[in-house]
Amino acid sequence: MGGETVELRVAMTCEGCSGAVTRILGRLQGVASFDVSLETQKVTVQIADDAALTPEGVLEAVAKAGKQTEKWA
Amino acid sequence: MGGETVELRVAMTCEGCSGAVTRILGRLQGVASFDVSLETQKVTVQIADDAALTPEGVLEAVAKAGKQTEKWA
Repeated sequence: MGGETVELRVAMTCEGCSGAVTRILGRLQGVASFDVSLETQKVTVQIADDAALTPEGVLEAVAKAGKQTEKWA
Repeated sequence: MGGETVELRVAMTCEGCSGAVTRILGRLQGVASFDVSLETQKVTVQIADDAALTPEGVLEAVAKAGKQTEKWA
């Protein structure tokens, strides 16, 4: 498990929105690194190699922000 | 339990932010009604009379949006 890169499309309309997603990912266990782009609406998450976190788990955590969230591709 | 009115101060900077809080409250079990004001930064939640939901539970659910959340008063 772990090691995957997850790409999501998240509806974010201001820096408050992207900041909320940033805070959620910052406290999510198993995230090695991440990038949140308000401009492209793209959220990229690198799962740590030995993490129990799954791509679905990442999507669910971000969706709890209350924003429309879906897989990028 | 239940029946309480909960007032929270939530940092929201655009309609994407307030919409996210609205979606979270709309799917939270035990909420009888609620109001989200972007202008005043105030979120008011009426817990249903027979609900197991607590004021702390409301605060935790809203805080999962990733926004600064605290009791209003």
